[in-house]
Amino acid sequence: MKKEIITLKKLAEILNLSISTVSRALNDHPDISETTKEKVKKLAHTMHYIPNLFAKGFRKHRTNIIGVIVPNITHYFTTTIVRGILEEASKRGYRVIISESNNDVKKQTEMLDTMIQFGVDGILASLTKMTRDIDKILPTINTVPFILFDKVSTKIPCTQITINDEEAAFNAVEHLINIGKKRIAIIKEREFSYNSEKRYAGYLRALKEHNIEVDEKIIISVDDISLHQGKSMTNLLLSFKKRPDAIFTITDSAAIGVIKTLNKFNIKIPEDIAVVGFSNNINSTIIEPKLTTIDQPGETIGKTSVKYLIEEIESVTDNITNKMIEIKGNLIIRDSTFKA
Amino acid sequence: MKKEIITLKKLAEILNLSISTVSRALNDHPDISETTKEKVKKLAHTMHYIPNLFAKGFRKHRTNIIGVIVPNITHYFTTTIVRGILEEASKRGYRVIISESNNDVKKQTEMLDTMIQFGVDGILASLTKMTRDIDKILPTINTVPFILFDKVSTKIPCTQITINDEEAAFNAVEHLINIGKKRIAIIKEREFSYNSEKRYAGYLRALKEHNIEVDEKIIISVDDISLHQGKSMTNLLLSFKKRPDAIFTITDSAAIGVIKTLNKFNIKIPEDIAVVGFSNNINSTIIEPKLTTIDQPGETIGKTSVKYLIEEIESVTDNITNKMIEIKGNLIIRDSTFKA
Repeated sequence: MKKEIITLKKLAEILNLSISTVSRALNDHPDISETTKEKVKKLAHTMHYIPNLFAKGFRKHRTNIIGVIVPNITHYFTTTIVRGILEEASKRGYRVIISESNNDVKKQTEMLDTMIQFGVDGILASLTKMTRDIDKILPTINTVPFILFDKVSTKIPCTQITINDEEAAFNAVEHLINIGKKRIAIIKEREFSYNSEKRYAGYLRALKEHNIEVDEKIIISVDDISLHQGKSMTNLLLSFKKRPDAIFTITDSAAIGVIKTLNKFNIKIPEDIAVVGFSNNINSTIIEPKLTTIDQPGETIGKTSVKYLIEEIESVTDNITNKMIEIKGNLIIRDSTFKA
Repeated sequence: MKKEIITLKKLAEILNLSISTVSRALNDHPDISETTKEKVKKLAHTMHYIPNLFAKGFRKHRTNIIGVIVPNITHYFTTTIVRGILEEASKRGYRVIISESNNDVKKQTEMLDTMIQFGVDGILASLTKMTRDIDKILPTINTVPFILFDKVSTKIPCTQITINDEEAAFNAVEHLINIGKKRIAIIKEREFSYNSEKRYAGYLRALKEHNIEVDEKIIISVDDISLHQGKSMTNLLLSFKKRPDAIFTITDSAAIGVIKTLNKFNIKIPEDIAVVGFSNNINSTIIEPKLTTIDQPGETIGKTSVKYLIEEIESVTDNITNKMIEIKGNLIIRDSTFKA
């Protein structure tokens, strides 16, 4: 049972005033006398009256709530984005409702509907894998301000915030070339994924700019870019006659699988095979040798997403240009590519 | 700008009916004719009218929102609890607002106040370190249903949900004794922390039940139970004339610091020194040798917390007995204590 809440009505009853008078007194309305204001404020203070912001929002037809949907709340990089979202939203006077789609497209659609029903002012979403049916998402975009972050899709017409995947991957692969590697394998996602495709494009550009021929054999595509797949695909790469001298994976988890397998076969890292991951999650410094990777500034992505969403929510016109914002990721060089 | 929302008012205007008639038609009120009901429902459907649950909650003086406060949203174990909270809350028709205190006592107090102002139906909180000033939390408990999980404090009179720290630690230390270890060090927190004290009690009981004398020298207390401290304290323990033959740390991060240091000095794990952590975070299987640890069922803790909170929210009486719920943690035996 909810414990007793001091409402405007209760204050009004005790003081034998109208609710509207009490409300205006608390809001320093010029029509109310100083004596009444003092009396009302004193009682409100004594009884620990707290104005219900929720009711205020309701009257404005605004809830000051932002809905956030992420595919996996236990994913470290996602939590750093969520931290940025919470911090910026709180600073701007918005509350955040978080949902997890568990990478389930149907659940994602349900959550979007529920958030709209609930009356959020806007939605920040990171898409589940295999979000092909854009039709399910379009009605949401037409109802409230909607922004995609991290797992985005150019098929959805809205502002999108990611890291500079292509350029970051280019820098990672160029670093491998600079340390003398010539046969660089990549482990990427098979299914269309915006981030994977961009990182792959950066890989191809680095090879091209350095006149290294692309060998389809060492371009490995997997369904699930996990630690386990990193292990299996390394076994595959090691079975080739012409082994790679470096492996670039588009996630840290896969890169850790790569390192574990190379360690098992006592293959020297980075001398025989260098390894680069992507995202700088906590595991990347637990594994030995420590992993060279791209640091993704999650908090900045979160804060930026909130900034653009609130801009749309508070905009007085409907004339909003969709933007593609890229936040810079930084190459962190560690022992898996560099021997001090 | 918010895009157009189809309201009851709009439907009423179009149909030239009163808002109350439209509302009752949609809710199948017996006073409304079938013809009118059909007409209203058809238009509502065509115009994609979605009932605003928020407004419904407002009328009931309920928001169906649960507030959650955690010290650190990027902490893996915390995210597994959050996953359980989100899942159970959604199943029960509640939304969740999450805040992060960043282990800052002042911020924690502010967040409690804001949540109350906002009108949440109840609060689930995991306390920041150094939450000594209980006075700041008591007003919250007197306003809405309030439950503590994970980082709890017996000083606060409310239902508390943790894992069975004492018993789990007892099992961990008994396991070390069973594999032949006789000089078992513990690395715990210096400041009063409910979880740390309980784990320490389990350690002491295991030694006592197996007639192993307690040696204060190898009971190490630190301010911040981190990977870094795990490293430093292992250096300290290794400097002793009588080295320990096992190290039990009350967190996995510290245990990983221990393993990294033992690896650096080529000390054999588990033969020379065995290592046990606590919490089974992802890193515990990344480190080599893999870490023996206590698996904490985060999702169960989250779901259980929501269950008890909703019970309090929906209870028709104020007569609620505070409970102390312990969820069972399981010892996971891996290479750091066992050589297959």
